[in-house]
Amino acid sequence: MTAANGTGRARTLVVAATIVSGLILTAVFSQLHAKSAAAEGQSRERYLPEYTADGDLILPKNFEKWVYVGSPLTPNALNGGKANFPEFHNVYMQPWAYEEYQKTNVFPEGTIMFKELQLTIPGQNPDGSRTEPSGRGYFPGKLNGADVTVKDSKRYADTGGWGYYNFNHSEPKAPTAKVKPKMECGYCHMANAKKDEVWTQFYIRLDH
Amino acid sequence: MTAANGTGRARTLVVAATIVSGLILTAVFSQLHAKSAAAEGQSRERYLPEYTADGDLILPKNFEKWVYVGSPLTPNALNGGKANFPEFHNVYMQPWAYEEYQKTNVFPEGTIMFKELQLTIPGQNPDGSRTEPSGRGYFPGKLNGADVTVKDSKRYADTGGWGYYNFNHSEPKAPTAKVKPKMECGYCHMANAKKDEVWTQFYIRLDH
Repeated sequence: MTAANGTGRARTLVVAATIVSGLILTAVFSQLHAKSAAAEGQSRERYLPEYTADGDLILPKNFEKWVYVGSPLTPNALNGGKANFPEFHNVYMQPWAYEEYQKTNVFPEGTIMFKELQLTIPGQNPDGSRTEPSGRGYFPGKLNGADVTVKDSKRYADTGGWGYYNFNHSEPKAPTAKVKPKMECGYCHMANAKKDEVWTQFYIRLDH
Repeated sequence: MTAANGTGRARTLVVAATIVSGLILTAVFSQLHAKSAAAEGQSRERYLPEYTADGDLILPKNFEKWVYVGSPLTPNALNGGKANFPEFHNVYMQPWAYEEYQKTNVFPEGTIMFKELQLTIPGQNPDGSRTEPSGRGYFPGKLNGADVTVKDSKRYADTGGWGYYNFNHSEPKAPTAKVKPKMECGYCHMANAKKDEVWTQFYIRLDH
């Protein structure tokens, strides 16, 4: 072995070791990034509205685990036997949108307000109420469809930045829904909802 | 430079490169593990009941972002002006407990059922209802304290494995609460709640 040969082999080995280390580090960093992204997805999944190729809204997924904000109740029996929204209106929004709203006091783009309707368990009284060990009143029963609004200032410019959808007032909920014209839903929200077309007057943790 | 010197330097460089790579990889793997653990904590935080040194239950944190399961409503006006539980009973449970229940059909140890009470916005009618653009009915208003149950088969063996707590029926909620004797709360749950002292008959996504 000559000095030149020895030095050459040393350089080759060092270069090879460096390349291998580099490849391992690249692989590890990729995995690190992927794991963080996946965990982030689980923890702070930023669920956004999803649309079909035709532009219909797809029924939002896992809404029942979102942040609940309130349940106005309009019993059928107090509304001529057929309330416009029968009967409990259980309203949810995405956790990320709730967090952002609490910080900024503004509903961020992509906010979904999901109103799941739920019938009361039929009651014995003319007002539709029933008596249970906890008292006389209204008790949630069968699910009954959903109404959904989506904040997107560009897509829904003619209804104040919110799109209005109905996924049936019965079960099962429709898998997709077409946007409603302004006079079917938006006009009433625009006229009466306290803040940015949302009924914050009924959702105490949003009423600020 | 001799062949022996060249080979020696090459070995030294390869060993050094290997050690440095090893240290970097160790550091990166440590970071990977720490980041995963932190993200896991955010995403699937397993909130468990917390107690004072005296054994009182500490008001659960962030319950308002847990999974909502239903809102029985017993209006004061339908209950002689003073319902036992005035008035909306908004019930939440920890996300991890909800997930486990959905898989096993059993409330796991450490489950907290958090019932936040909420008054209705005062109505114009004798039944306490009011008329809003969505119809005649009951609309959620001021928060009004909370009742909480905790599943712990050992700690609460004499009340069927659940402990019963009241954090006021007014605001602010008490910061801590003492466990209630069986005859104040537990007996009624034991006698009337459909499943394991929980009123699953009113919480449709738990009623299976």
